[in-house]
Amino acid sequence: MTSRLRVRFVPLGGLTEVTKNMYLYELYEDTRLKDILIIDCGIGFPKEKELGVDLVIPDISYLEDKKDKIRAILLTHGHEDHIGALPFLYNDLGRPPVFASKLTSVFLENKFRERNDQVFIERVNFEKTYDFGGFKVNFIRVTHSIPDTTHIVIRSPVGNFYHGSDFKLDLTPPYGPSPDFYQITKAGYEGVLCLLSDCLGSEREGLTLSESVVGRTFEEEMRKTKGKFIMTTFSSNISRIRQCVEAAIKFNRKIIFLGRSMKESTRLASEIGYLPIPRSLIASEEDLTRLPPNRVCLVVAGSQAQYGSAMTKLADRQNPYTKVGPGDKVIFSSDPIPGNEDEVYELIEELVSQGANVYYSDIADQLHSSGHGNQEDLKFLIRFTKPQYFIPIGGTIRHQHQYRNLVDELGFDRDRVFCLIEGETVVFYRGAASLGETIPTRTIYLDAYGVDEVASVVLRDRKTLSTEGIVIVVIVADKQGSLITRPKVFSRGFVFEKEQDFFYQESIKIIESVMRKKSGRLFEINNVKREIISLLEEFFFNQKRKTPLIVVEIITL
Amino acid sequence: MTSRLRVRFVPLGGLTEVTKNMYLYELYEDTRLKDILIIDCGIGFPKEKELGVDLVIPDISYLEDKKDKIRAILLTHGHEDHIGALPFLYNDLGRPPVFASKLTSVFLENKFRERNDQVFIERVNFEKTYDFGGFKVNFIRVTHSIPDTTHIVIRSPVGNFYHGSDFKLDLTPPYGPSPDFYQITKAGYEGVLCLLSDCLGSEREGLTLSESVVGRTFEEEMRKTKGKFIMTTFSSNISRIRQCVEAAIKFNRKIIFLGRSMKESTRLASEIGYLPIPRSLIASEEDLTRLPPNRVCLVVAGSQAQYGSAMTKLADRQNPYTKVGPGDKVIFSSDPIPGNEDEVYELIEELVSQGANVYYSDIADQLHSSGHGNQEDLKFLIRFTKPQYFIPIGGTIRHQHQYRNLVDELGFDRDRVFCLIEGETVVFYRGAASLGETIPTRTIYLDAYGVDEVASVVLRDRKTLSTEGIVIVVIVADKQGSLITRPKVFSRGFVFEKEQDFFYQESIKIIESVMRKKSGRLFEINNVKREIISLLEEFFFNQKRKTPLIVVEIITL
Repeated sequence: MTSRLRVRFVPLGGLTEVTKNMYLYELYEDTRLKDILIIDCGIGFPKEKELGVDLVIPDISYLEDKKDKIRAILLTHGHEDHIGALPFLYNDLGRPPVFASKLTSVFLENKFRERNDQVFIERVNFEKTYDFGGFKVNFIRVTHSIPDTTHIVIRSPVGNFYHGSDFKLDLTPPYGPSPDFYQITKAGYEGVLCLLSDCLGSEREGLTLSESVVGRTFEEEMRKTKGKFIMTTFSSNISRIRQCVEAAIKFNRKIIFLGRSMKESTRLASEIGYLPIPRSLIASEEDLTRLPPNRVCLVVAGSQAQYGSAMTKLADRQNPYTKVGPGDKVIFSSDPIPGNEDEVYELIEELVSQGANVYYSDIADQLHSSGHGNQEDLKFLIRFTKPQYFIPIGGTIRHQHQYRNLVDELGFDRDRVFCLIEGETVVFYRGAASLGETIPTRTIYLDAYGVDEVASVVLRDRKTLSTEGIVIVVIVADKQGSLITRPKVFSRGFVFEKEQDFFYQESIKIIESVMRKKSGRLFEINNVKREIISLLEEFFFNQKRKTPLIVVEIITL
Repeated sequence: MTSRLRVRFVPLGGLTEVTKNMYLYELYEDTRLKDILIIDCGIGFPKEKELGVDLVIPDISYLEDKKDKIRAILLTHGHEDHIGALPFLYNDLGRPPVFASKLTSVFLENKFRERNDQVFIERVNFEKTYDFGGFKVNFIRVTHSIPDTTHIVIRSPVGNFYHGSDFKLDLTPPYGPSPDFYQITKAGYEGVLCLLSDCLGSEREGLTLSESVVGRTFEEEMRKTKGKFIMTTFSSNISRIRQCVEAAIKFNRKIIFLGRSMKESTRLASEIGYLPIPRSLIASEEDLTRLPPNRVCLVVAGSQAQYGSAMTKLADRQNPYTKVGPGDKVIFSSDPIPGNEDEVYELIEELVSQGANVYYSDIADQLHSSGHGNQEDLKFLIRFTKPQYFIPIGGTIRHQHQYRNLVDELGFDRDRVFCLIEGETVVFYRGAASLGETIPTRTIYLDAYGVDEVASVVLRDRKTLSTEGIVIVVIVADKQGSLITRPKVFSRGFVFEKEQDFFYQESIKIIESVMRKKSGRLFEINNVKREIISLLEEFFFNQKRKTPLIVVEIITL
């Protein structure tokens, strides 16, 4: 009977890249697909970033004719690369039930709201076993750099899967419990057919530093700071932010959040009690004009020196209420993401040149702790779960292969480690596994103005534009040059902005003013194009020290 | 009902000193003692070593009128400081049933045999729950520097005790399984009233290095060695020895064990299959005269530079079959025990001066790995077992207090850590605990010639003799000086030898020759005494560079 059953694991992302996590578990009876479980649905950050694409989302076209088999979407934690694509794809997935822990749900519901959509996310009960068709599922509490992170045990007729998404074994998490070691080892005791494991830390020796260590550093540094205390990290890193806030409470500093994403995530976390702050210590940006520096703790978005972020504005003296100066201490509590180093160091130099004391991980330990387990964390999970097969997830090829070495070191068969690339599948039978057919997936780029699929041929073209990017202006006017619609401005590989942004609005204003000036009987398209290009070039150079290729298309009706 | 029940924990050793581990768990109903469990019965190494006492054993006089309540003796592992005192005390304990894992049993049974005694030790079944009166007991596999090490869960009517004796969490033990994490965390899930934990590594950060790392070092070093490969460690460290043997097998070197204790422990381990060696690679000491150096791997007792040990003899060119010379590599795979440093460094210098390449932990990493868990190992055990109370065992006062800091760091109540000294007891009620009355214990010294209780007044006297020790000669002769019995020689604080040893025999020969020469009608006691003293002084100085006080007592009949 059971020999006719099999489970196929299909990664639609999250393999050979760290992000865009999305995994399918499919249960088949003979060739008949019975049930699909989806784990996570995150965005990716493409290598082609400089070519004008901003995000990548999983390609779900494989699922198009199988929506009725999707029993549930299970989310492991609230990071963008695990939940961020769902608002874009939820309709196309047929809006199946979604399950997540508390903070994950709150973050994701907010994302849906921002798109004027709504979703009901069932809060996970860690005591409960969920039935999804032929699958039975348990969630297990683990630790990571965001509270309410989970692992998922998926029991199927052919064996059990331990979905060990992003984690570290933090024995002293600043808030919330440490990992539920009993449930983890119980899964191992009951038998795990395959362990899917985070592998991003597989090159780093030892155990990962506890998140709490960073909190102690905040206290020590705040004690020594005579001016403003300024901390920047990822907006979703609620544990980190809370530790900074607690230090501020201890030293009676007012807490001010800077940056839209920081304000949003801290608001959401506060609403569910994850970030308690005494009312007397909450201050607004405007209060900065009157507060003495030694009463101020700024928690600022933009640790990656993103263009237009609150941190960059602060360094560029563009914050209207405060400046950075001598006596102030700025702490970068995050490592630069590979590719962002230049911008981050430029930002640090700007801050230093204004007299601030800047601490970052190159010069000071214990300002940051990875959310991903090092080698020992990963080895513990292997010993706890004692699986028959392994699939390293959430890492690049070199992390996967280093993970295979760890498996080997522990005395398991290295041939039982599947180092997959996206779309490669593994088919599990009772007690056995082998590579299945590969599901073709395309790269779906999401850019600043919405979801567009960007063909790879275009991407190749863009490489020629890769250093400066391109700005495209589309104008629809009548024969005399009177605008029929508002001009459209698109940028690629140049600036990552929303339509509401200063940059976009200013460009429109410049175009509109040229069109107003030049319209009339003598309206001459090429002359107008040149003027628009010239003015925009000047504007972009002044603003960003960049000279993108500017293409102006005027359509006259 | 249950409120009338209580359990008292009584440490008869192992507290504020690392060794002489012996612990009682007593179950009372009202004031009536119902059942006693004994965990471990080890020897200690006294600080007063230089005063002529060699060993310390637990004082069991408290148990004298309670033997009928002793339900069992449970042994955690096969190290001397956990099993070594049992052969001396077993009769006085009323010979209760003894339970231990395989290697522990084999070592202990051999100790009994050496004393012409016999004991039946029940091999532990890790699947089984044992009933001992009101106690129920499970053994759990853990890892340490000796195979077959266990922890013990003791379930009582007032709550469960997790007896976490010497351990480290070795994820890659060279032989045998890693710790049974499921059983450990299951004990925590079911509820632990008190965790008794090894605390010796509580000052060291991180996780303890896996024992396997040392094996890799052996291979690398052996590959580079052109002459003899010589490794010294504790004779009981079977895992370490096995790793050296496996490297020798790989490089086709003949394996030769030197030293009585080394030969004995490796023989016992081999007999139960814990130390497999191909017959073709086993060689005897005599073979050293004909084997080329690059075909030799010597595994030698005496890593602490004990007087008269195989290692010391080798360095002193007293081994009749081989010498150490250029091209040879000597590896000290153990740290000097505090107090032994001078002797060990002297030994190293002797070897270096003979041209050997000597590796020891000061100059080379990964030659040795502690068997005791560092801070992270200890923290994991706390998170796994989640106890209500803590008793650090197997460490000195500073280790206990550092352990308390770890408990505090994990967010437990530091006031629930009992830092006990020997004889101090803790009484456990359902869900509560408090200090009980103190059981008076004396220090029982065991010296080279058997079990003697040495009064502290004598010890105080000995301090005056502490630098050189004392040798006592007792001669029984007739009026003409003809010996009536063989002379007796005792040493205290000077040399740790058995009656069979070279040193003892030579002294007797000297005395007998003086007596032969001086006997007759002109026999004059004081003159004879002076000559014996003079010759013995010369002999001791030549042999040991020591000038012990020599007392000669001649009894004429």
